[in-house]
Amino acid sequence: MIVTPQRMRFDQPLPLQSGAVLPSYELVYETYGTLDADRANAVLICHALNASHHVAGHHADASGQPIPKSEGWWHNMVGPGKPVDTNRFFVIGVNNIGSCFGSTGPTHVNPATGEPWGADFPVVTVEDWVHTQARLLDALGIERLAAVMGGSLGGMQTLGWTLQYPERVRHAVVVASAPNLTAENIAFNEVARRAIVTDPDFHGGHYLRHGTKPRRGLRIARMIGHITYLSDDVMNEKFGRQLKPLTDAVQAGAVDEAVRLAYRYTTQDVEFQIESYLRHQGDKFSDYFDANTYLLITRALDYFDPARAHDGHLSAALAAAQAEFLLISFSTDWRFSPARSREIVKALVDNRRQVSYAEIDAPHGHDAFLLDDPRYHAAVRAYFERRVAHSLSAGGRA
Amino acid sequence: MIVTPQRMRFDQPLPLQSGAVLPSYELVYETYGTLDADRANAVLICHALNASHHVAGHHADASGQPIPKSEGWWHNMVGPGKPVDTNRFFVIGVNNIGSCFGSTGPTHVNPATGEPWGADFPVVTVEDWVHTQARLLDALGIERLAAVMGGSLGGMQTLGWTLQYPERVRHAVVVASAPNLTAENIAFNEVARRAIVTDPDFHGGHYLRHGTKPRRGLRIARMIGHITYLSDDVMNEKFGRQLKPLTDAVQAGAVDEAVRLAYRYTTQDVEFQIESYLRHQGDKFSDYFDANTYLLITRALDYFDPARAHDGHLSAALAAAQAEFLLISFSTDWRFSPARSREIVKALVDNRRQVSYAEIDAPHGHDAFLLDDPRYHAAVRAYFERRVAHSLSAGGRA
Repeated sequence: MIVTPQRMRFDQPLPLQSGAVLPSYELVYETYGTLDADRANAVLICHALNASHHVAGHHADASGQPIPKSEGWWHNMVGPGKPVDTNRFFVIGVNNIGSCFGSTGPTHVNPATGEPWGADFPVVTVEDWVHTQARLLDALGIERLAAVMGGSLGGMQTLGWTLQYPERVRHAVVVASAPNLTAENIAFNEVARRAIVTDPDFHGGHYLRHGTKPRRGLRIARMIGHITYLSDDVMNEKFGRQLKPLTDAVQAGAVDEAVRLAYRYTTQDVEFQIESYLRHQGDKFSDYFDANTYLLITRALDYFDPARAHDGHLSAALAAAQAEFLLISFSTDWRFSPARSREIVKALVDNRRQVSYAEIDAPHGHDAFLLDDPRYHAAVRAYFERRVAHSLSAGGRA
Repeated sequence: MIVTPQRMRFDQPLPLQSGAVLPSYELVYETYGTLDADRANAVLICHALNASHHVAGHHADASGQPIPKSEGWWHNMVGPGKPVDTNRFFVIGVNNIGSCFGSTGPTHVNPATGEPWGADFPVVTVEDWVHTQARLLDALGIERLAAVMGGSLGGMQTLGWTLQYPERVRHAVVVASAPNLTAENIAFNEVARRAIVTDPDFHGGHYLRHGTKPRRGLRIARMIGHITYLSDDVMNEKFGRQLKPLTDAVQAGAVDEAVRLAYRYTTQDVEFQIESYLRHQGDKFSDYFDANTYLLITRALDYFDPARAHDGHLSAALAAAQAEFLLISFSTDWRFSPARSREIVKALVDNRRQVSYAEIDAPHGHDAFLLDDPRYHAAVRAYFERRVAHSLSAGGRA
């Protein structure tokens, strides 16, 4: 499935939750499948911290050939014959503003100054993102979504949709998410932000002007984040206490087994396999991710809290939702534990909403929402086939 | 209880596990209570990452008055009438080499160069520390310890004692510890080390020569560590999602409640209480702790693994131990979970050793080993009164 990103410009100023106004912006988005005549089969996919509009399919090179390894971040979930079947649904992926994969964000030029926004890019929230996504749907002529779906922060946007545009969402699929962040969640975000902000190459967020990039901070931020996405079990299974092997030439017999397996007694070098893996993850991330984007998106995570305006009562907050829900959590996810999903389930049940809930016993921690566990995918597939599609064939237009 | 640190010099070269040799070194230590005529009532306390020889009591100012807030790090555990009762036992606290609280370490002058050791200080292990502690006891004329006790990394030293000097230890009290680190434990140590090492003020570990200090890295390291010491529960209870209040003047009525409780929509400033707390912890730590010490001590944590020389079989590794054990773990400790202590208990039971085990249902995470939970302290007190003291009155000298 070859896909091409599209770009849409919005010149009407966008009032933000913070009180600031974004004078204009552009959204990059991709669509997969075909919008039916009723315009009723659209499914919006909301992305999390380190993802974009490129949800599924491949990009093509100049000759139209699929670029290897260019599949979208949820390629195992969305596509022809996949759990979210693009033979049946018109799926839309949008890159959120403030991000760094094409939509207006801190690396873009601020029209008022002619310089990149940098640290001056306004703080954005889940609520703001949902409004921008709704405007895109207006432009595409889609009044009502068959479903909104997302994992992690994408799940928060999904929940936000059901509260901000209750009549525009038939089904909400919320995966590995939570009604807000705990103190521990905020703590990890804050350490990552401090690593970035205190990097001398950050220059108060104006690193683009200085021609620098706070790579040290981005690497640390990514390493921290990565540890929280994995589970203790999967890290032990994948890495355990294994040492990083010496180079291949050395391994190929030139060095005795005891030496190869010995500690090297260093403090600054890689010795354990897990160290090598984390450093690699940090290096890769620091190549492509934008530091101000990292700050903006983790803040959006921190702020999301629908119950806050209801004195902490989630049931009161979710009374506005009309959608039918599917929630999924993973047993070893310690970032957004199953208990957090169950809070949402309970609040929906309190409001007599229709909700399905699956707690998948998977070893992969928070990362599991991106992987292809068969029970997880079967639950999503069944929901889309029996509940989401059912709404369509029942001709359920308002 | 006023105490004064003492210093002892060791001129005999110390062969280290790494193969290097430390030509000479000094140990700073404190003692509490009185060594009995048999020299049989000595209890050695081993410290963890962020602690020292100053286990209990207060230091005195020039006029002999106790300095306020100068109590030792285990002041609630050790002292007259405390669970480790200095009216009965002669308790010794030693600062390990490589640390930064007085014993020879990276901030000390390398006699070979006349410059501070810095990054050239040799890598040290739990095994090395136990040997230096044994030499101190030799100098104090103590052949056999009534007990060795420690929490976390101190617990690892305690376990190490029973394997390296099986006949010198009657009782081993191992609190909130583990037989080795998991991949996740190593991962957190590695991120902290990378934050320090990549701080431009680290200068490859030779920051003392440059007159700098990698404070950014130390702050990040401390923040990360701190999150892992606390439990999700205690963080939610203590901080939750509370915002840091605006200044007192503002709070005292000048600003309306809604404003005071509102998000401020910033990305680089403190907004949540937990952020303020963590930044403060990081700032304090970066004032007094040495960066090379942080690298050395986390490496010692990474390396400790008695089962490693036995193909991963802890039961085989613990066959050498002759001591009687008390192990204690805390239910919400996710850094060294109760399961880790149970591995040690099982291995001891496999070897038909006498072992007592208490798993304390405490909310405070790994930090609990330093706090005064009544059931925890009662368990330690009972063990010292009934088991450790019993060995003494039974006149059990070899």
